Amino acid sequence: MQARALRSTLTADAHIRLTLVDVDLGEPGPEEVIVRVDAAPVNPTDLYLMLSMADLSRATTTDGALVAPVPPAAVGVFAGRVGQALPIGTEGAGTVIAAGSGAAARALSGKVVAAAAGGMFATHRKLPAAAVRELPAGCTAEDGASSFVNPMTALSFIETMRAEGHRALVHTAAASNLGQMLVKLCAADRVPLVNIVRRPAQVELLKTLGAEHVLDSSAPTFADELVAAIAATGATLAFDAIGGGPLVSQILTAMEHVTARSMTAFSHYGSPTPKQVYIYGSLDRSPTPLARTFGLAWGVGGYLVSYALQKLGREAVARMSHRVMSELTTTFATRYNGRIALAQLLDRDTLSACAATATGEKYLVRG
Amino acid sequence: MQARALRSTLTADAHIRLTLVDVDLGEPGPEEVIVRVDAAPVNPTDLYLMLSMADLSRATTTDGALVAPVPPAAVGVFAGRVGQALPIGTEGAGTVIAAGSGAAARALSGKVVAAAAGGMFATHRKLPAAAVRELPAGCTAEDGASSFVNPMTALSFIETMRAEGHRALVHTAAASNLGQMLVKLCAADRVPLVNIVRRPAQVELLKTLGAEHVLDSSAPTFADELVAAIAATGATLAFDAIGGGPLVSQILTAMEHVTARSMTAFSHYGSPTPKQVYIYGSLDRSPTPLARTFGLAWGVGGYLVSYALQKLGREAVARMSHRVMSELTTTFATRYNGRIALAQLLDRDTLSACAATATGEKYLVRG
Repeated sequence: MQARALRSTLTADAHIRLTLVDVDLGEPGPEEVIVRVDAAPVNPTDLYLMLSMADLSRATTTDGALVAPVPPAAVGVFAGRVGQALPIGTEGAGTVIAAGSGAAARALSGKVVAAAAGGMFATHRKLPAAAVRELPAGCTAEDGASSFVNPMTALSFIETMRAEGHRALVHTAAASNLGQMLVKLCAADRVPLVNIVRRPAQVELLKTLGAEHVLDSSAPTFADELVAAIAATGATLAFDAIGGGPLVSQILTAMEHVTARSMTAFSHYGSPTPKQVYIYGSLDRSPTPLARTFGLAWGVGGYLVSYALQKLGREAVARMSHRVMSELTTTFATRYNGRIALAQLLDRDTLSACAATATGEKYLVRG
Repeated sequence: MQARALRSTLTADAHIRLTLVDVDLGEPGPEEVIVRVDAAPVNPTDLYLMLSMADLSRATTTDGALVAPVPPAAVGVFAGRVGQALPIGTEGAGTVIAAGSGAAARALSGKVVAAAAGGMFATHRKLPAAAVRELPAGCTAEDGASSFVNPMTALSFIETMRAEGHRALVHTAAASNLGQMLVKLCAADRVPLVNIVRRPAQVELLKTLGAEHVLDSSAPTFADELVAAIAATGATLAFDAIGGGPLVSQILTAMEHVTARSMTAFSHYGSPTPKQVYIYGSLDRSPTPLARTFGLAWGVGGYLVSYALQKLGREAVARMSHRVMSELTTTFATRYNGRIALAQLLDRDTLSACAATATGEKYLVRG
C-alpha cells in the first residue's frame, strides 16, 4: 500500500524544507485500518509546526521541495526538530479502504471516519482502529474533518470552567472559528460568555450569531466595558488566544475590580475569589506583562487541549466526543474559505494564503 | 479591660495616619481569652498594610499621630480602605491574663500563647480561645511570636510541592528569614532546593546554613547555573518573593530547557512536564513579563499562605502546626535585629528602620 505524505524538515542551515514523499504503508495489522484521507483542515497549529515561523515571502522551489528561511530568533525554539522529516496535519477524515483481521478493524471497513492522529496531510494513513472514529450516518469526510481540535477545545473550555469552580467565561480573539463555535455552545448550555474581539466588524459577526457580550478591545471604552461585562456575567475564567500584550493583565484587573465589590472588609491581599487566564494561542508572540494589580488569588497558565483532556479524565472526554459527533453538522460545523489539493501545500502562493487567513477563515486539504 | 492598639487610616486626602488608640475590650465571653501581647514581629505584610506605600521620608507627627503621604499611583490599590482605622499586626505571642468560663478558655489561663488573628500591634487582644495556641513548655513569647507567617509559609511550600506532584523547589530572595528557614526544612526533609539570591554575600550566608545550590542572579553566569541546578535537582516548582522583572520567566525557561531533554520526540508544544511559579511577594513592584518561551505546560500564580492552607486541607494544616510547635526553637527560630516598643511604631526613624530592613532582618515589637 503506497501513500504520498507531506514532510517538513528544519535543515541545519535554518531553512524549512517541505516535500511530498512516498510512504510504503504495508498491510494493516489485525487492529489497524488504512484510511484514504479525503479532507484535512489547515489549523494554526499545523502551520506553526509545518513552517516554524519560516519567511514564506523568501520561499523558493527546488527539486519539487518548497524551501524557506527561518528567522534566527526562531531557530532556538525549534532546535529539537533539526534534520527530522516531520509528518504534519493534526486531524482529518476519510474512508477506510483496508482493514486488519481484528473485529474492531473489520467493523470499520468502508466507513467514513475521523482521526486526530497527526500526519493527516497525506493521501493515506495507516492507523490503529482505536484511533479513528466512525462518523454518524450521512456525514461526509468534510463534515468530520475538523471534529477534534476546535470542537474539543471549545468543549474543554466549558468543562474546565465547571471542574475549576467558575461559572462564566471570557474569550479573546473571539471571532475565530473556535470562538464562533464557543458562542453557539455557550448559548446552548446557558454559560455566560464575554467575547473580546479586535475589530468593530467582528462585533457584528458575533452579534449575528446571538452573542450577548461582545467587546472590541480597540475601542477607547474597552476597559470600562470589560468591567461591566464581567460584572454582568460573573466571569472569573478567561481563555486567551493572543498571548502577548496587555490584555491578559487587563482581564485579571477587571475581574479583581468586580470580585472586590463583594468583599465585606478591606484586605490588602485583594479579593480571595480565584481568577484564572489560560493562554492557548500566541497570535501576538511578544511577552505577556502581568501588572500584578489584581490581588493574590490569580493564575495564568499555558493551555493545550490534550493536557486539558487528560486532567478532565476519560469519562468527560467520552461525553465530549459523543456530543461532537451528535452535533457535527450544527454546533460544530466548520466553514472553509478554500479547498486545496495536497500538492498545493508546496505552492508558495497557496500556502501563503493558508497562513495569512484572517480570523475565522480556514483552508481544507481535499484528497 | 483597657488596651492600647495601633490603627492605620488612609485619609481621603491620600495620607496614612498612624495612631495609638484606647480600646475597651470588655470582659472575655465564655469561649474567649484576653492575651497580653508580649512580642509581635514586624513582617513585610504588616508594613505593607500599615503604610500602604506611604513615603516615610515626608512623614510628620501631628497630635501624636504619624502622618505620611501616599503616592498617587498607590492610592487606587488601597481605595477600599479609605477612612477605616485598620488594626495591624498579623501575629504575635503573649500571656493569657483573663479567660472566659468555658473549658477551653479556662484551660489557657496564665499560659503563654501564640496567635495569628491580626491586630497584634496592641498591648492586649481579646480573642476566641480557638484562635490561640499554647506554646510548648519552656518557650517564651519571643520564641512563639513568629510561629505562623514564616513557618507555615515555608512548610506550605513543601506541602504544595507534594500535593501538586513536584519533587524539588526553586526559591528566590532566598536569603530572607523565610528562605533561611526553608533551607533548614528542605535539608531535614531531603527536598532538593535551588536558592536564588541577589548578592554574592548572600551566597555565603546560605552556604553556611548548609544549602547546596545557591545562585546569585546578579552573576553573568546565572542563566547557565540555573539550568544546571534545575537539572541537578529536578525542580519544576518555584516560589518567588520578587514578582517584578525577568526572573519568573527565566526560571520557567530554564525548567523547560531541562524537562525538554527527556522528550523522546520533538513536539512544537514543548515539554509536557508541568512547570509552575508561585509569586508570594512583591519586592519588585514592576510587572512580570512572561516570554512564553517555555512550551504550554506552565503556570504562574499569586500565592498567599492562607489560600494555600485552605487548599491543603485541615489535616495537613494540623500536621504542619504541630511540627512548628515541636521545632519552634530550632528549625523555626527567628532572629531579630531590633526590639522596639509599641509606641515606637509612631516614631518616624524607628519605623523607617523597620521598613528598610535588608533581606533576612526583622524587628520585634515588645510589650
